Formats: sequence, structure tokens, C-alpha cells
Amino acid sequence: MDVTRYRAETPGCAEVIHFNNAGSALPPAVVVDTVVDYLREEALRGGYELAAATRKRFEDVYSSVGRMINSAATDIALTDNATRSWQAVFYALRLGPGDKILTCRSEYASNAIAYLQSGAEVEVVADDETGQLDVADLERRIDGRVKLISLNHVPTHSGLVNPAEEVGTIAEAAGIPFLLDACQSAGQLDLDVTRLRCDALSTTGRKYLRAPRGTGFLYVHPRLRDRLEPAMLDLHSATWTAPERYEIDPTAKRFEVWERNFGVTLGLGAAVDYALAIGLPAIEERVTALAARLRSELASLPGVTVHDLGARRCGIVTFSVAGLPSPEVKDKLAAAGINTSTTHRTSAQYEFTARDLPEAVRASVHYYNTDEEISTLLREIERITAAG
Amino acid sequence: MDVTRYRAETPGCAEVIHFNNAGSALPPAVVVDTVVDYLREEALRGGYELAAATRKRFEDVYSSVGRMINSAATDIALTDNATRSWQAVFYALRLGPGDKILTCRSEYASNAIAYLQSGAEVEVVADDETGQLDVADLERRIDGRVKLISLNHVPTHSGLVNPAEEVGTIAEAAGIPFLLDACQSAGQLDLDVTRLRCDALSTTGRKYLRAPRGTGFLYVHPRLRDRLEPAMLDLHSATWTAPERYEIDPTAKRFEVWERNFGVTLGLGAAVDYALAIGLPAIEERVTALAARLRSELASLPGVTVHDLGARRCGIVTFSVAGLPSPEVKDKLAAAGINTSTTHRTSAQYEFTARDLPEAVRASVHYYNTDEEISTLLREIERITAAG
Repeated sequence: MDVTRYRAETPGCAEVIHFNNAGSALPPAVVVDTVVDYLREEALRGGYELAAATRKRFEDVYSSVGRMINSAATDIALTDNATRSWQAVFYALRLGPGDKILTCRSEYASNAIAYLQSGAEVEVVADDETGQLDVADLERRIDGRVKLISLNHVPTHSGLVNPAEEVGTIAEAAGIPFLLDACQSAGQLDLDVTRLRCDALSTTGRKYLRAPRGTGFLYVHPRLRDRLEPAMLDLHSATWTAPERYEIDPTAKRFEVWERNFGVTLGLGAAVDYALAIGLPAIEERVTALAARLRSELASLPGVTVHDLGARRCGIVTFSVAGLPSPEVKDKLAAAGINTSTTHRTSAQYEFTARDLPEAVRASVHYYNTDEEISTLLREIERITAAG
Repeated sequence: MDVTRYRAETPGCAEVIHFNNAGSALPPAVVVDTVVDYLREEALRGGYELAAATRKRFEDVYSSVGRMINSAATDIALTDNATRSWQAVFYALRLGPGDKILTCRSEYASNAIAYLQSGAEVEVVADDETGQLDVADLERRIDGRVKLISLNHVPTHSGLVNPAEEVGTIAEAAGIPFLLDACQSAGQLDLDVTRLRCDALSTTGRKYLRAPRGTGFLYVHPRLRDRLEPAMLDLHSATWTAPERYEIDPTAKRFEVWERNFGVTLGLGAAVDYALAIGLPAIEERVTALAARLRSELASLPGVTVHDLGARRCGIVTFSVAGLPSPEVKDKLAAAGINTSTTHRTSAQYEFTARDLPEAVRASVHYYNTDEEISTLLREIERITAAG
């Protein structure tokens, strides 16, 4: 992998050491330029006029996304973020009291709040001895009341990768819809919806995909799409064919709304094309290797505890420093020009409660990070622990 | 009004004659620059890092919007478009069979589709002799089953301004929520929610407000907000306080989602500030006067029919040319460097059906348009009718 080139193509690499890729990654120049060029041209020609003239480019975004996750373009909805993507499917399922949802212990707040709001019963599947979702426990819990299996591929607060393919096989065999939240995995892992066997996959653009903020997409398998009327409709997801009648769009566009910022959407397309040109398998390999090194060297530092579990781990590394609140560690790193983040109990109550976890520092690496940057981070942590 | 200055500050004014302000207006340079500068800085510093550093600027957008419509900043939700703004309130009302919705004949497709989807009974209030919503008919229709009065201030397909203040007075007296779709009025009319007496007002940024695409806002009066649990929740609109509990945000932020493009949102703020600096009353006066001239001169051209009704009219002018399909007229105007739009039956079925309207050309003027531009448009229409 030509990391030197990818760094040269990423203006932010000269400015900061960015280990907040699970928050919002540094975009390559082509992504920002795509958005900026479009916005400038829009200001000269008119928003609707330019959109009409560039319809083909816009449609290409669906094809690029489809190519990346191995789906048809018509099974993709382009959205404003991961939340909108996920909500579009979850709320269309119209679950309620009497229904059961199976999820993972590492589940994300937004999803869990929606489960609670629905009134359905939530069963948190146990973890296995490695810390990932226990597939056997999941299988045991399936009964006639289970209407949804819904989990994250990678949580917001740890480097764990849940065994999504095994879950998909079980869900498919049981005929239960499987909604996979790929918010943290898209762009760092090589996703293939036919291998994952998910009925729906939701994600964002701004994280590992390196796309602009305010972008995301949703994949929905036709077998699920055809039985779902979206929870909300407009004149794009449906057509008002007569005063008393409407017809819902036959494709995944039924989960979209009409209006969007076309510039940032083209930026998402540019980001996906950029990732495809490098190759997701190569990205996954490098991200995983860099994070493994960081994790193992952090674990060897006195006073540092690494919190990531799982048989398989990804680019997210979480740790804490004895005697120092994580927000303070993060601030000290920021002062040294290193971007990291912190995890929050309110983002993952099931797991923080079960494991009695501290709020940790989250260092999420990307393929454009270097071994030198990781060494710098480790040196800073050593300095902080020595001084603290 | 210093039109010369506002045109100089609008790069698009040198490129096109833009009469598609009801579609998406030409933004002033400061709006595009605000977005572009933010996106470029974000690429250097990181999306979360810049957002944290510019929180104050972001919060100022709420204050600017509040100042424009005379509401508290905490009664404003910033959204991605008018549809999201409107849906956030409509679907939270959870109307269904047995409930009744009163709306106007000029109602917009997205809203009407949502009414139909809800299963509630829809009553289309009659128009009065001027063509606007008949306030007396509205009042007559109120009974115990009416759970919502919902209408557009200005329709997408005509220059009509509905008598929103009178409707607000009736709704308030009857204790029925009044949802006003201000998608086409915000930015061209001087809106004041205390005068309008609406419980909620939804709008977009890209139209008369001259903000970026993919922006919008929603005002919700506390008396309505406090009884509405949003139809969808995430970790921004609610907080996951314990595994089995969540708490909904006390402000209008309960109608937002966490993720957005911060650059375009700051662009919305810049557009609102720009409009405030000019003054909404002055904008309304000029837009109304320019449109009135265009309407009256169009009506005097042989073969041209103007379709706008209403006691009060705004910047939207709709017309058709005998013997020429409107899309063809629009294309001919576009070839002459004049942007207009066309209206669609599927956008306003109640009215197209009731009045048996043709799909018309829509020329929507803004304060930065000039008398010369209107003369050029009229000349082109004359040429088209003569040639056609």
C-alpha cells in the first residue's frame, strides 16, 4: 500500500496526527474538492439546474456503493447519516409489545433507545469467552416472538468485531430479519452483504469511509424491502397519484427523502471510489495490523489498561490510564497535536454496566496513519503516565 | 434596497437570470464561502475537533433563526430539509383512524401522502372567492375529531399566500395544533410565529432563504413540544440514562438527529444573517412588487394565462402558454439563460384536480432579480409565443 501517496493526498496528514477515525476521519483532497467544486458551480448555475445536469454522476454514487458492498444499486438508499439509515428500517418494522428483539451487549445508544421506545422486549445476547456476541446463545434465544436480530458490526466504544456472518446465517435459516449497524465497520472492513447475509445494513460516510459529514447509506435486501412500508413518506419515497392514493417507490429509494445536499452526496461517492481504488481488503489488513501493534504496545505500558475484547479486532483501540480521567488524557494528547476521542457510558449502557467499564480513551487508526505516528502516540502516553 | 450590492455579492447573478428561487435560490458568496471555509478547515483538523472548537458559532445559528421568526432559540430544531422538519412534528402527533385533519386545497404532495398514510380522515377546506383558504369554512369544520390543522403558507405551484394568521387565531381558540408549512414563504415573507399563532412551523434553507441545499429548520411552540414524543429517537434527541431507560431532550432538539454536515448548517446561519441584515419586511416588499409586475405584464401577453390566485400573492408566478407544453417553454427559456421551473400535478393533486389546472411554468422572483431581468423574461415569452 502506497501510504506516502495517500498521505500526500490527505491535506490533514500534514497538520495533525489523527486517531479519531471512528469519530470522523480526515478526508482525501478529492472528497473535499468534489464537494467544493460542486457548491461553487451550484452557486453560479442554480441548485436544481446543476442537479439536473449532473444526474448521471449522482446515480453513479449508488453504483459505487453497491460495488463496495456487493449489492445492486437499486438496493441502496442514500441518507444523511447512519442514524437515518438505521431508523428507516427499524421504525418501518413497526415492532411493539409482544415482539422480541435480539441484540448484542455492545449495542449502541441510538439503537437501544429505539428498541425501548418501540415497546418490544429486548434480549441482550450473552458474550462468549472472547467477548464477542455468543452465536450459540443467540441461536438458543430464537423463538416465534423474535421479530428482529439487530446488532452492530463494530461498537463505538471498543475494537471488537462481532461475528456478523455467523449471525446472518442463523437469521436467514430462522427467517428473521437481520439489521446490521455497520457504522463503525464500513470503510475499514471489507463488507459483502451476500457473505454477511444481512437483510439491511446501515452506515455513515464520515467515519472510516472518509466522506463528508452528513452522508450515509442504507442497503436493504429486496426480500425485506418488499414487505416494509417506510414509517415516514414524502413525494420522493412515494408518488401522489390521485387525491386519495399514493404509490411507494419500488426500490430502496422508498427509504430516502427528496431533498439533500448534492455536493456532499457526490463527496460520499468520491470517498467510496477512493476506497475502492485502494481496495477494501488491503485497507482492512493495514488498519487491523496498525491497531494490533498499538494495542499490544499500549498494554505493555505501566498504568495503561487496554479494554478491547473479541476474537477478531479492528482499527478501534480503547484504553485507560490509571489515576487519570480519560478526557484529561485526550486533552493532553490534543495539546501534543494528536486527535483521539473518549468513550461514554451513555453510548453503550449494556456493556458499561455489565463490565463496569471506565470511560476510556479511544484511538482509532486508519490506513493513512503510520508506524511513526503510533510511536509518537505511545511516547506521549508514556509521558502522560510518568507525569500523571 | 441596494440591489446592485446584493447582486455583486451573488456570483450567480453574473451568470444566469434566475427565476427559480422557489426551487433553490442563488446563494450569496458569504454563504458558499462559509461552507467551503469550514469544509477545508475540517479536512485539516478533523470533523469532531473543529465542531468542538466552533460550538458557539453553531449555537448562534439557532439564535439567528429565532431572531428571524421571533422565537426562542430553544424552540428551534435544525434539520436537513423541510420534509424532515415537517415530518418530525406530523408523525409525532400519531394520528390515525378516527382523527380528522383539516388542510387546504393547495396542499403539497409530501404532506398529503403523510395524511393518507396516517389513516386519519382528511378534509380539504374550501377556497374563498379569491382562491385562498376559506377561513369561515375552516371554522365550520372544526369538531371534536379534528386533531390537526395543517397547511402550507405558500404552495409550491402558485403565488397564493394562505391566510395563516387568521387560521392561527382560529386554531388557538379551538385548542387544535396548527402546523404551518413555510417551505415557500420563509425568506420571502416576514414571518413571526407569535403573529402566525402556529404551534409548529417547518421550512427549508435552499429556497427563498438562499441557504445551502440539505438544510432546514423547525419551530415548535413549547405547548406542543411538551406533549410530543418524537416518532424516532437517537442519542441526541434522547439520552440513554440506564439500560432500561431514556430521557427525551427538553428543548426542540428532541426533533433533531445527532449527525449533520456542520459546514452547510453554518451556511444556513450565514444565509439567515444575510437576510436579517437586509430586513425581511424590505425583502417581502420588493419580492411582492417584482412578482406583481411580472404577473400583470404576463397576463397582458396574447396566448399567456397566469394561474395565481389569492387575495395576497408572493414571489411565485405561474403561467402557461397556449399550445405549448410548459416543459418546452422552460427549456426554451433555459436556452436563453433564464432559469424557471414547471409545476406538477403529482405535487398538488387536490388543486390540480379541483381546478383542472395545466402543468404550468413557474417563475419565482427574488429581491436580487431586476426589472431588466423581468423585461428580458417577458421578451423571451413573447418570442416563444410568436414562434410557437
